Amino acid sequence: MAAPVAERKPLPTGTAGGGALRLGVAGLGTVGCGLLAILQRNADLIAARAGRPLQVTAVSVRQRRKKRPLDPGPVRWHANPVDLARDPEVDVVVELIGGASGPARDLCLAALKAGKPVVTANKAMLAEHGGLLARQAASSGTVLAYEAAVAGAIPVIKTLREGLAGNRVHRLYGILNGTCNYILTTMEQTGRDFADVLAEAQRLGYAEADPSFDVDGIDAAHKLAILASLAFGSIIDFRKVHVEGISRVSAADIAMASELGYRIKLLGLAQMEQGGLVQRVHPCLVPLDTPIAHVDGVYNAVVTESCAAGRILLEGRGAGAEPTASAVAADLIDIAAGRFAPVFGVPGRHLARLRPGSMRDHVGCYYVRLQVHDQPGVIADISAILKRNGISIESLLQHGRAVDDERGVPVVMTTHEAREASMDKALGAIARLASVLDRPHAIRIEKLNEAEEG
Amino acid sequence: MAAPVAERKPLPTGTAGGGALRLGVAGLGTVGCGLLAILQRNADLIAARAGRPLQVTAVSVRQRRKKRPLDPGPVRWHANPVDLARDPEVDVVVELIGGASGPARDLCLAALKAGKPVVTANKAMLAEHGGLLARQAASSGTVLAYEAAVAGAIPVIKTLREGLAGNRVHRLYGILNGTCNYILTTMEQTGRDFADVLAEAQRLGYAEADPSFDVDGIDAAHKLAILASLAFGSIIDFRKVHVEGISRVSAADIAMASELGYRIKLLGLAQMEQGGLVQRVHPCLVPLDTPIAHVDGVYNAVVTESCAAGRILLEGRGAGAEPTASAVAADLIDIAAGRFAPVFGVPGRHLARLRPGSMRDHVGCYYVRLQVHDQPGVIADISAILKRNGISIESLLQHGRAVDDERGVPVVMTTHEAREASMDKALGAIARLASVLDRPHAIRIEKLNEAEEG
Repeated sequence: MAAPVAERKPLPTGTAGGGALRLGVAGLGTVGCGLLAILQRNADLIAARAGRPLQVTAVSVRQRRKKRPLDPGPVRWHANPVDLARDPEVDVVVELIGGASGPARDLCLAALKAGKPVVTANKAMLAEHGGLLARQAASSGTVLAYEAAVAGAIPVIKTLREGLAGNRVHRLYGILNGTCNYILTTMEQTGRDFADVLAEAQRLGYAEADPSFDVDGIDAAHKLAILASLAFGSIIDFRKVHVEGISRVSAADIAMASELGYRIKLLGLAQMEQGGLVQRVHPCLVPLDTPIAHVDGVYNAVVTESCAAGRILLEGRGAGAEPTASAVAADLIDIAAGRFAPVFGVPGRHLARLRPGSMRDHVGCYYVRLQVHDQPGVIADISAILKRNGISIESLLQHGRAVDDERGVPVVMTTHEAREASMDKALGAIARLASVLDRPHAIRIEKLNEAEEG
Repeated sequence: MAAPVAERKPLPTGTAGGGALRLGVAGLGTVGCGLLAILQRNADLIAARAGRPLQVTAVSVRQRRKKRPLDPGPVRWHANPVDLARDPEVDVVVELIGGASGPARDLCLAALKAGKPVVTANKAMLAEHGGLLARQAASSGTVLAYEAAVAGAIPVIKTLREGLAGNRVHRLYGILNGTCNYILTTMEQTGRDFADVLAEAQRLGYAEADPSFDVDGIDAAHKLAILASLAFGSIIDFRKVHVEGISRVSAADIAMASELGYRIKLLGLAQMEQGGLVQRVHPCLVPLDTPIAHVDGVYNAVVTESCAAGRILLEGRGAGAEPTASAVAADLIDIAAGRFAPVFGVPGRHLARLRPGSMRDHVGCYYVRLQVHDQPGVIADISAILKRNGISIESLLQHGRAVDDERGVPVVMTTHEAREASMDKALGAIARLASVLDRPHAIRIEKLNEAEEG
């Protein structure tokens, strides 16, 4: 077996700027301008660490005349981003356009085909087309780097791909979407409800005008699919991620969870269960004594549990101009210094198509909130249904008596470990009880300490 | 400027094991056996990630016949570790002997001189002789890797050297010694005193028979010196670390700190202050609402605050056979895959000899515990001394009245920001008051949130 170094094309050292690594940047939005700022401010430091200067020689933007916080200086402007791949004065393409397909994907494929390394922050593109792009990078003997695609400034890609390379990962989970974490944190701190806090987040610019990508869990699922591929050596398979968003989480759930010793977080989790890879993104109750329960606001965190290293937690800023650009800069410095790794940590032939685990077989504890008529026998009926489905109640809370029985009273339960299929069946039966007013609302409880010793 | 890749010797690919990277391991203690276990258990995974198998071909131990949990298999045994450097069937030397000088240093220097990469877990050697070793590695065009030397399984060296390479670090701090953290955590959880918990830790094997290296802060100072060099591009200078251990921390301090909203941790901190690099290891009061306050027991954590990435926290197991060996394996996989970086992140000519900042100029808040005669005017006298030295009191606690005035009563104060020289002067004057019984005990308060935005 030959050393992989030998299989790779040497990078063009170029002529411009005395051995500078020449960058073509597509997209000068928030992250693009953040990158220019870092490259300008820390030019000497970066040149020392990279072994050569990094120089932006070409950019592609939709509107060249738009007002920007920074001037890229004397660069070549391309109206069509794909021209960056063909520009002889570009050694490395930095894709910061976004979007799973379209110009972003066209540019990356063209650059990789031309043997040029690509650095991207585009998680949607990687989640949807990561396999295709990785194959192109491998067949061209070049690099596709994407530290910025997951968890902003946190070096989680490097940690999984290199720092934990001697380990078999048992489980991985994290807070991967800053918008959702900001909303849940603010709901907890203010007692306000989801819609109200979301509207405020939109006014403050922490949530998009169309927030569905974030609050429905899609963005977290893209990131989880990338991490799961790296951690488990699996062919990236975003379609197999079970996704639920946070829009059904209420202020009442958050208050009840707190009373029970939990906090509600949107987690992405990936784990081998019964021979299948389960990838899931959904709100969870996490115990207050776990570190991840205290990751608040716009911070992200990723926890890995692996055979030799045990539990590792990485926490930092998950988004924003400079935190994201910091990750792009790290990838560029690695490329300039000649440090490479296969796109998903191992050569493509070693990636496995892992059988997706079914959520129906998932075993866990549940939090269930019900709205019921305040009358004798309700709890007995509910308990009987749970018992019939092999589910045992861990705790039960009922607050106050009904003033107006039309609206009912809330009942909150937590269960011991149960199979998800049994839980679904039980909740269906409970919903059909005449004394139960709304559809029962269940949230999974993740105790998170159990798999630690692997 | 040429790309650094070109300056380096290509690694010998060897002939044994079909392109395997052939390892010579010095020392088969806890970490050495942990490494053998990982390399055997995860051989396929590691070969896929490294691009070639990793094979132990030679070992050096003091007692070949000693009973070990694992058999290294058919390897060459060397009585003298330095012979590993000369063994033609060894491509990379793994130094796990320990000790700042002696055979560990002789072996590393010999291997580097022979152009063989060295992987080590030896923080004392790096802190004392890191400069010398780095110069030898550079002049031989080879690698000295030491992820395992700081914070066990946590990829903190890689994060500082590569993951944050685009950043200027403002401040770095961490819990770097698991023994001290275990002792402080246990003191807090049980209310027991230092000596008692230390004795128990020794019985349980969490502390050495001679615990001074850990409890006096030397081990944490070694690690801090390494991190500071990487973070600030400074020539490693362990002698300039201000070091205080935890032996004066009492159960009373821990209880008082908790009442004031703090936890006591032994931190290593490095920061540029007034143009000088301050490196210090000492017990601190850290606010309960900071993540590092909740890093308990044998866990380590490192926080970096840098210009683009902001605050990053890394937490994980700081010691133990497999956590430490996990870091050694990561370095070996990097070497096998041809990923290199200069020893302290930049070529030696870019490292600066930074002026050490003086602790006398340090500005911070303080916790002070006094034992005083319970009589009128004591607090007035103390307050007058503090005022004279420009120090203002933030809070003052006095618990109970004296039953026996011979022993006095404890008074606990916290101060607003003060210069350390002023604080020392004030404490000296307070100690001379007739109403003050013991030497005042001061512990620095680190609020930790302030520099975050850098």
